[in-house]
Amino acid sequence: MSKGKNKIPELDVVVSSRVRLARNSKSFPFPPKLDINQAINVVDFYKSVIIKTESSISKQLIFIDSTKINPIEKACLVEKHLISPEFAAKREVTGLILSKDEKVSIMINEEDHLRIQAILQGMQLNESWELCNRVDDLIEAKSEYAYCDELGYLTACPTNVGTGMRASIMVHLPALSMLGYINTVLDAVNKLGITVRGLYGEGSEVMGNMYQISNQVSLGQSEEEIITKISIIANRVIEQERIAREQLLKSKIQLEDRLFRSYGIFSSARIMTSNECMKLLSDVRLGVDLNILKGISIDKINQLMVITQPANLQKVYGTTLNPDERDIKRAELIRSKLEV
Amino acid sequence: MSKGKNKIPELDVVVSSRVRLARNSKSFPFPPKLDINQAINVVDFYKSVIIKTESSISKQLIFIDSTKINPIEKACLVEKHLISPEFAAKREVTGLILSKDEKVSIMINEEDHLRIQAILQGMQLNESWELCNRVDDLIEAKSEYAYCDELGYLTACPTNVGTGMRASIMVHLPALSMLGYINTVLDAVNKLGITVRGLYGEGSEVMGNMYQISNQVSLGQSEEEIITKISIIANRVIEQERIAREQLLKSKIQLEDRLFRSYGIFSSARIMTSNECMKLLSDVRLGVDLNILKGISIDKINQLMVITQPANLQKVYGTTLNPDERDIKRAELIRSKLEV
Repeated sequence: MSKGKNKIPELDVVVSSRVRLARNSKSFPFPPKLDINQAINVVDFYKSVIIKTESSISKQLIFIDSTKINPIEKACLVEKHLISPEFAAKREVTGLILSKDEKVSIMINEEDHLRIQAILQGMQLNESWELCNRVDDLIEAKSEYAYCDELGYLTACPTNVGTGMRASIMVHLPALSMLGYINTVLDAVNKLGITVRGLYGEGSEVMGNMYQISNQVSLGQSEEEIITKISIIANRVIEQERIAREQLLKSKIQLEDRLFRSYGIFSSARIMTSNECMKLLSDVRLGVDLNILKGISIDKINQLMVITQPANLQKVYGTTLNPDERDIKRAELIRSKLEV
Repeated sequence: MSKGKNKIPELDVVVSSRVRLARNSKSFPFPPKLDINQAINVVDFYKSVIIKTESSISKQLIFIDSTKINPIEKACLVEKHLISPEFAAKREVTGLILSKDEKVSIMINEEDHLRIQAILQGMQLNESWELCNRVDDLIEAKSEYAYCDELGYLTACPTNVGTGMRASIMVHLPALSMLGYINTVLDAVNKLGITVRGLYGEGSEVMGNMYQISNQVSLGQSEEEIITKISIIANRVIEQERIAREQLLKSKIQLEDRLFRSYGIFSSARIMTSNECMKLLSDVRLGVDLNILKGISIDKINQLMVITQPANLQKVYGTTLNPDERDIKRAELIRSKLEV
């Protein structure tokens, strides 16, 4: 198995790790209660606190005026999981801070005053948490959060009260899915107070076999406890997936047939929906990890997973495209990236 | 369209042309009535008449002792349409004469004493008929056929009495099939006293979209009349198929998508049934003719149509293979021939 093959931990199964903190200022009403001037003040306040500060992390961060982001660009940020769909849809005054490497994003005036997020490739929950923490410490040094000793951080929605933390990893589970074990594994995980859900639509086969494992509760546990719990459970899931892949390799010719066919279609088609694209990418990713498909890297697959999505596709081609046009351009883009 | 692109006429639509003559000796009982010694005498007689003769065509012909052909080799000859399945299954004494280029085959003691066949690529019914005629003249110069002035050549089965001729062409009609016009066209042809049938199994989609157009009647018409009639009707069918292909080209991206996907699967799969192989070959053949798929010739496709069939596949690999093994070797052989 490709454990250790890449420098990024567990990249064979874990696509990315993400931590986000919900924070609110003690000095302003929570976003649902803000009037327009207060909302502007919140954005300006955090802009100066985060950006206009002498610190190594501040130099990496860029403030983006949300009103100046065009709809395609906004949708691209959603597809990259850098902003939430709710944030993209908000008509109220909001602000966005992004790091140049797109590992850190801070939404201002989403549901809370601040949503601080870090997203990293592979199994890097601790590293994501540390990144968030650095930003959090920077802000806490210059302003006071809405905090109460009994409950912890206060948030607009009670489900986030406490640590205000949501930690999640995106895992690719094609082998568990192919062998029909996926629901048993997911049910077991859900019983442990951890949420697992398909990342791209539910159904008999979750699109791309991509699942998000995250904590349901942010209250009554420390940040470290949350991350440790998710990591332990994730490691069990990773192990199960690897065992399932080994099992698939026992019927190697059938597996090769499926994966090579998927790659054949992926690299030949002239029209491709995003739905089919995700399904084929799942097979191609598995094929690369199992060393069956050669000449394509996991990095390129991760890149394709993003740029084949509707908004990013339009950004690549620099023009708006209707769904039929997108299906044609998607196939074209894949072929150009695969150099076939 | 590829009309005239190849030296072989109408190769874009017509795969092959075939003429066979049923003939019987005046001096022996018909095959169903032959005892073993008489059967041996018939084989020996025609062997000496056809092979041991000073003529240019005799030098091209080789006598093959039917008892010494192994079952796989026999099945290969059936797959190449050089002998009939009935001939391959016969336990009685038979003989076979083949030309080195496999254009002429003569079955001795099939249903009639002689079945003289010529098969050529593309639309070459007249040429096939001439080839048969040369062999026929050679034999007639040295022996007397069972012939009656009123009926013509006498045959074991009354359906062959008269000219004893069956003329047929194998046509590839993917576009008429894709557009749903195929049954209308076939019905029209059948009403003209000409038979059209799927060459590889019937059903909603005839395998490989290969059809055989042939005469039903051999009595009351001259050989030239039969060939002319089939040629005229075939030319109409060829024209219809070409119009349908032009029509498909109007939705070029959809057509390209289908054909490239088929080629992608064809060149990538690790397991392939003969059924799927014929379907994909049909698409690939169409793609090559329409200049959508490049780097593969119609010749190679015709070759693949033969060598991917069960017996020929086993002959290529020089070993008996069960159906599962064949499906794997078929995919392997295709990839090696496509050099992918």
